[in-house]
Amino acid sequence: MFVQSHTPFAEMHEYKDKTVLVVGGDYDKCQLVAKDHYGFQNVVTPGDIVSAHPDIWPFSKVFMDYYKSFAKPLPKPINPSTPSETLKIDAIFVYNDPRDWGLDSTIILDLLLSSRGRLGTLSPQNGSPTLPNRGYQQDAQPPLYYSNPDLWWAASHPLPRLGQGGFRVAFAGLWDAVTGGAKLEYTMFGKPHQLTYEFAERRLRAHRKMLFGQRGLNDPLRRVYMVGDNPESDIRGANEYKSPHGSLWRSLLVKTGVYREGTVPSCEPTVILKDVGEGVRWAVEDSGKS
Amino acid sequence: MFVQSHTPFAEMHEYKDKTVLVVGGDYDKCQLVAKDHYGFQNVVTPGDIVSAHPDIWPFSKVFMDYYKSFAKPLPKPINPSTPSETLKIDAIFVYNDPRDWGLDSTIILDLLLSSRGRLGTLSPQNGSPTLPNRGYQQDAQPPLYYSNPDLWWAASHPLPRLGQGGFRVAFAGLWDAVTGGAKLEYTMFGKPHQLTYEFAERRLRAHRKMLFGQRGLNDPLRRVYMVGDNPESDIRGANEYKSPHGSLWRSLLVKTGVYREGTVPSCEPTVILKDVGEGVRWAVEDSGKS
Repeated sequence: MFVQSHTPFAEMHEYKDKTVLVVGGDYDKCQLVAKDHYGFQNVVTPGDIVSAHPDIWPFSKVFMDYYKSFAKPLPKPINPSTPSETLKIDAIFVYNDPRDWGLDSTIILDLLLSSRGRLGTLSPQNGSPTLPNRGYQQDAQPPLYYSNPDLWWAASHPLPRLGQGGFRVAFAGLWDAVTGGAKLEYTMFGKPHQLTYEFAERRLRAHRKMLFGQRGLNDPLRRVYMVGDNPESDIRGANEYKSPHGSLWRSLLVKTGVYREGTVPSCEPTVILKDVGEGVRWAVEDSGKS
Repeated sequence: MFVQSHTPFAEMHEYKDKTVLVVGGDYDKCQLVAKDHYGFQNVVTPGDIVSAHPDIWPFSKVFMDYYKSFAKPLPKPINPSTPSETLKIDAIFVYNDPRDWGLDSTIILDLLLSSRGRLGTLSPQNGSPTLPNRGYQQDAQPPLYYSNPDLWWAASHPLPRLGQGGFRVAFAGLWDAVTGGAKLEYTMFGKPHQLTYEFAERRLRAHRKMLFGQRGLNDPLRRVYMVGDNPESDIRGANEYKSPHGSLWRSLLVKTGVYREGTVPSCEPTVILKDVGEGVRWAVEDSGKS
């Protein structure tokens, strides 16, 4: 059973009949996950928007063959002269690492500066000195959700590569300059955040129920083993997680990714092991103990 | 005669026999300008790098058809296990608006964190508390030059679109998060900066010499008219420019771009006019006065 960083978005039922922007991932893969697996009815991507309105980010022109290969028609065009008829986005979900940071930043920024999420409009409240946060994000703009906070991840390149967190901090720099230092409101899912570990524990409990039926249904999971390569996300999340059911979580750090052998991990795990296989063996043995 | 924002790079002779990274623009257009027009001998683009080493930024995979259409072989591969044999970049020039912010940010960041500009290496000085700027950019990394500071420009979309300055502030946010708040050293060309106006004046004086020979060669240009749509770059630059030759500059703001009629420009021009044509007529008439 795979739980991906965006899986917790599946539970955000309040947006299932609204129009949501799904950002990140290759082609329309995340859009299809949102529609077909999570049940969101109106899912728009930045690629759909730029294909219908190329002038929203003229510099994506060179990537237009890519966007045209999967773009779908928009439910409404961008037509700010009649604000009630322009495309309105009700929530922004960053599912996976953005591929086109310029386009995705532009569209997220447009939405966060818009009036009520209507693309092509500008909120008249932006910059008002008498309003909270100088009027920014005070005009029913769509909320912004990130699925994964990791700044770095271990890839095949010799040095760690920027993750979704890289896009997030770059967008924060843009927001800071554009607004003159206003606060940027967003919600973070993903490790090391409590919400994601709660979600994982619910999934594990549902899996136990499927395997064993009602037997022990309300007991806590006796032990949960978090195996990961990233001290700041995997290990910190497991160490700091407070299980609502009182389950005991242990953190197993492996040497095959972000963490490099011989260094001191920024967050101390229960144990450091060679790789995931060794982690599973360790967990099986540990769980056999009383 | 056109002077583009990157034209002042033509005078940076100290890098002409070194290896430079040229960032921004469609395809290899800026690379060709740097080589064929400005005389830089070794010019590498992020597209060349990612085509040879796709794992340097795995998320550009979806744009690989674009990069393969113009990428040229690298002078050296990225091979950090033998640092003297890995590709070394001596200066970074952002010529034009980056198209692929993720790739371009990654490669600029890699270079600014490297040892001596060698791709694939990390400077051991990064983060050293005893060094200036906590060791960042203290290890002969390549200098970073931007050609254009504009955060916004007027495009065909109803709202202004992010310019090269948008990339710059996003990269600054990334740098801030990665380094924990170290200063980012860079040099800015372009309006409203003195260097760019000096460059324009040199070009105008050379043009006068071509037209009129030695006659009046050392006289100042009596009047120079700066016609532009952007109060913060075009107009501020002309107003604040101090001509080394004592030329008198006047600033003409037009209504066909960033500045919107009826608003108060953030920097007051000599005169506000309808468009460039009216600006030229105004300048011709004004220059006929004593």
